[in-house]
Amino acid sequence: MRLLEERIKKDGQVYEGNVLKVNSFLNHQIDISLLKAIGEEFYRLFDNEKITKILTVETSGIPFAVAAALFFDVPVVFAKKHQTSNLNTDCYSVNIHSFTHGNDYQARVESAFISAEDNILIIDDFLASGHALKGLLNICEQAGAHVAGCGIVIEKSFQDGGRMIRDAGVRVESLAKIKSMENGEIIFE
Amino acid sequence: MRLLEERIKKDGQVYEGNVLKVNSFLNHQIDISLLKAIGEEFYRLFDNEKITKILTVETSGIPFAVAAALFFDVPVVFAKKHQTSNLNTDCYSVNIHSFTHGNDYQARVESAFISAEDNILIIDDFLASGHALKGLLNICEQAGAHVAGCGIVIEKSFQDGGRMIRDAGVRVESLAKIKSMENGEIIFE
Repeated sequence: MRLLEERIKKDGQVYEGNVLKVNSFLNHQIDISLLKAIGEEFYRLFDNEKITKILTVETSGIPFAVAAALFFDVPVVFAKKHQTSNLNTDCYSVNIHSFTHGNDYQARVESAFISAEDNILIIDDFLASGHALKGLLNICEQAGAHVAGCGIVIEKSFQDGGRMIRDAGVRVESLAKIKSMENGEIIFE
Repeated sequence: MRLLEERIKKDGQVYEGNVLKVNSFLNHQIDISLLKAIGEEFYRLFDNEKITKILTVETSGIPFAVAAALFFDVPVVFAKKHQTSNLNTDCYSVNIHSFTHGNDYQARVESAFISAEDNILIIDDFLASGHALKGLLNICEQAGAHVAGCGIVIEKSFQDGGRMIRDAGVRVESLAKIKSMENGEIIFE
């Protein structure tokens, strides 16, 4: 998606350890025109899939899931990863390792909200090691739901999460695929 | 907002301690038609205010802030409340007590994203004790930004947060105002 790649080149900041910060336009502050275009692009890619529900995980996947859901006109479910008293105990849950935060967390979805009748589109902001995405796929598997595919805003394709998940037969569409960030220079596939 | 009140009556669940769960349609799973209607209603209420930016706090305020921002066509900023390596140190921050989670947290906004030029609409899902909203107002004050008002999805008006903030001269518009939830029966103002 050219608009997104150009914006990442212009406003993305590369830090040591292959960290890409997109705080000024995708995460923390969100450019609403770009967000809308991203939602529309996910709709174009998965429009023929009869999606019944969009699944993401809090926090930074939520804006993209909502933007897409407005085009698909289907409910959004976001997996909770923080302890809260406001969650029923009847949940699908999975343990996910976060490289960004350097810890493990439990992602949970109330079992009432995903079922074997669903055809799910999973949406997330980043795909790198693939831990979060594999966790969401695992939750869908627990529910017996079909996964039509995964829509990712930015994939770091120099890490192997995307390849592993595609090799497992899952359709993964990434709007920007970064093949290298060496010396602070972002190169797309 | 009648559509919202009817839905809260139908699908909201009241638990001990005046806890209202709206997990099936507003929080965790989100009804996208209702979300869009909520965004549009915030736009109707604050359309003449020349809003430059919408501010919320993660996590559950984000869908409503995004839905509204799509109508206003302005950026969304969400205050971060979880530690992350992806945040610059140059931040406005405030300590907020969460009754839902029973702890205090630091809400932070990078100082680059709010300025004295801004006319902010603050959006959040719930208003009860008002701690989160007062925290967001404080962040705007630190930035010298003007606050046009606050758009709240559900206010528990039997708690005093809304009254205190209105008494301080801030415009607060709540789409559903619950005046009582005794014995599991939800009564709106």
